[in-house]
Amino acid sequence: MTAKPLNQLTASEIVAAIAAKKTTAEAVARACLDHIAAREPQVEAWQFLDPDFVIKQARALDASGKVGPLQGVPVGIKDIIDTADMPTEYGTPIHKGHRPRIDAALVALTRRAGGIIMGKTVTTEFANRHPGKTHHPKDHARTPGGSSSGSAAAVGDCMVPLAVGTQTTGSTIRPAAFCGCVGYRPTWGDIRCHGVMEASGSVDTVGLIARSAEDIALYRDVVLGITPQPLADNVVEAPRIGFCRTPYWNQCEPGTQKSLEDCAAKLAKAGAKVSDVTLPEAFSQLEDAHRWVTSFEFARNRAWEINHHYEMISETLRNNRLKDGLACSFEKYRESRSTLARLRRMMHDVFKDFDVLLVPAASGEAPVGLNATGNASHCLIGTSTHVPCMTLPLFIGPNGLPVGAQFMAARNNDRLLLEAARWVMANVAR
Amino acid sequence: MTAKPLNQLTASEIVAAIAAKKTTAEAVARACLDHIAAREPQVEAWQFLDPDFVIKQARALDASGKVGPLQGVPVGIKDIIDTADMPTEYGTPIHKGHRPRIDAALVALTRRAGGIIMGKTVTTEFANRHPGKTHHPKDHARTPGGSSSGSAAAVGDCMVPLAVGTQTTGSTIRPAAFCGCVGYRPTWGDIRCHGVMEASGSVDTVGLIARSAEDIALYRDVVLGITPQPLADNVVEAPRIGFCRTPYWNQCEPGTQKSLEDCAAKLAKAGAKVSDVTLPEAFSQLEDAHRWVTSFEFARNRAWEINHHYEMISETLRNNRLKDGLACSFEKYRESRSTLARLRRMMHDVFKDFDVLLVPAASGEAPVGLNATGNASHCLIGTSTHVPCMTLPLFIGPNGLPVGAQFMAARNNDRLLLEAARWVMANVAR
Repeated sequence: MTAKPLNQLTASEIVAAIAAKKTTAEAVARACLDHIAAREPQVEAWQFLDPDFVIKQARALDASGKVGPLQGVPVGIKDIIDTADMPTEYGTPIHKGHRPRIDAALVALTRRAGGIIMGKTVTTEFANRHPGKTHHPKDHARTPGGSSSGSAAAVGDCMVPLAVGTQTTGSTIRPAAFCGCVGYRPTWGDIRCHGVMEASGSVDTVGLIARSAEDIALYRDVVLGITPQPLADNVVEAPRIGFCRTPYWNQCEPGTQKSLEDCAAKLAKAGAKVSDVTLPEAFSQLEDAHRWVTSFEFARNRAWEINHHYEMISETLRNNRLKDGLACSFEKYRESRSTLARLRRMMHDVFKDFDVLLVPAASGEAPVGLNATGNASHCLIGTSTHVPCMTLPLFIGPNGLPVGAQFMAARNNDRLLLEAARWVMANVAR
Repeated sequence: MTAKPLNQLTASEIVAAIAAKKTTAEAVARACLDHIAAREPQVEAWQFLDPDFVIKQARALDASGKVGPLQGVPVGIKDIIDTADMPTEYGTPIHKGHRPRIDAALVALTRRAGGIIMGKTVTTEFANRHPGKTHHPKDHARTPGGSSSGSAAAVGDCMVPLAVGTQTTGSTIRPAAFCGCVGYRPTWGDIRCHGVMEASGSVDTVGLIARSAEDIALYRDVVLGITPQPLADNVVEAPRIGFCRTPYWNQCEPGTQKSLEDCAAKLAKAGAKVSDVTLPEAFSQLEDAHRWVTSFEFARNRAWEINHHYEMISETLRNNRLKDGLACSFEKYRESRSTLARLRRMMHDVFKDFDVLLVPAASGEAPVGLNATGNASHCLIGTSTHVPCMTLPLFIGPNGLPVGAQFMAARNNDRLLLEAARWVMANVAR
């Protein structure tokens, strides 16, 4: 047996332990469920959890004789992602008790690989800003971040080794950073969103949350529907890293700025080629363009709810995203979409000289209060330019809570990003 | 009262007649239902139709006092698009009797505008190749085309003035051309697909089918969720038209080639600036790239059905799209996606000298036989390059059946395409 409690194992460790017959899917599931039972009253990460059903799934898996690449790994699924055997409520009372007919594509691929769907994790309302019930696992008076609140809290608290979120602004990277996880937003368009509620399709992606870069690599291949390939050793010898303070740098807390600057120095010391990079002036248009594109699309995607249950939509959503979306002309929408397309091409050029960029993941530690989910601005660039992004749990803030460092690579360079992330974790992690 | 039977009115004519109190939504619905009752045994365009429920909706609309821009217009919805009050079966016995929880975004927007959902139209299996039951309305031994078979047959037969389809290869343009309709595929990304089954998201769009360009313009604005603006008069005085024989020209029947050549001459005579245009040699890569991108994505999107109901999937689908998709490596998929992105940029340059391109919509008349849906190659270019496309019912083939002419404009030039289409209909339609 491994020395660590089973609920603290990474997905890769679980797969290896089960393959070596050192444990079973059932034992892993029980360890995670026991930990959840102890912690859930304070953390409230789960929108739906049926322990008996989890054990039933795990036993069936152990008895099946099949061995998949994600064998016996418990996974939390954000509650805007369809599951055929569990409710999916999209963070709104409008859809209370709804049970979809089929699994989302990525859920079906997870199961095909031997993963166990542990339950549904809490999301903000329609994956927008109005928060759910979840608390930060390390300080219950603080937000875990959003919108993938329950997914990040559950992984950060070792309730599960893997969880799925989504990202339209900062909905995976931000909560993963707050909760001390490794968070990954893939190149836009790579992972199918069939059965995932669309917020704003022009920028939406699935997001993956884990506790290691290796686990992200493994689970990414599973949800891509391809045979997992382990990260190659030593592929990245001396990554070329651009340290980019971004237009949102002054929204970072001073301690976060210092941590990032120290990190850049440490990376250079460890052998990386680090240099400063400033984004072109045109990136000042990004925030506005993202706002109009996402709001226009979001308001159309909620047409049924607006027609039938407008009064059940939160004031936060009605007075912000929906109001913006309904006020935005089609001309303004298209112009904003074209602006984002131009910035994508510029971003591609930025990466000519760098393997990855180092940028803030969030302003600092998770803020106090459960009625908001923190500043998402630091994710605007990665999200809008469709590039792959990761947050790594590299820093500790003034209150002893995790602070993430975000790395981004050029579009389609997800493997390079993952390998660079592993290099960073091996060379500069505390 | 208008002279034409109510079921033969266009959507714009219905809206005007109801506004002028010359008719009612109920009377229009009854006329369409009566026509359907007479014709459906031969055409079989409908997967679900409940006449009593349609009349109930129409009466409620007449009594509501509200007047929307699509007031009283009956619309057919392809059965891969979710409806909360009617089944949605995706053309497969796997989903027999499934009733979604909510309307797809475009269905909710249609209802908000005063449109009446007439019923669900027959689709091929998962909007792929395996056909449904529908017959060509003018020759029941022939295919209506696919995959939006029922939508095109229903509009072509004057069962409804408007219907919604989708297009991943040629699934709107081809059946609309066969059935003598005006068919429209929008700029990729414009019309939200929330609640529309994803076939292959990288190229999927909704498609609209009508009997006039004005109706397409009206309904497009409705499903964009914006206030409809009528097409401006005389905006297009002398469209610059590129006559493009495409790499698939030799797949056209000789009569279709001649019709298109005559059409180009007629357009020039009517005042258009017509010149020949040849696509860059790189377009020879398009068909293969489209095949791998769509197959890779399609196979992942059907993960749940593959896990649970593989034996209920047709052999056609298993041995073609799914086999391709499961055999395609991620590297090949991404490379193919990059090829399509390159061709999109080249296509943008092609339009520097032209407002629209004239290309074939299909090889000729709808072929005899109900076990296939015809050649879709002529739609590969428009679909893969994300540009807006329309088919106009300009020709009659050797058997007296409709043959379409396809027009395409640059990405985002949908209004220009619609105005050019109106100009073409006014100046060269038979």
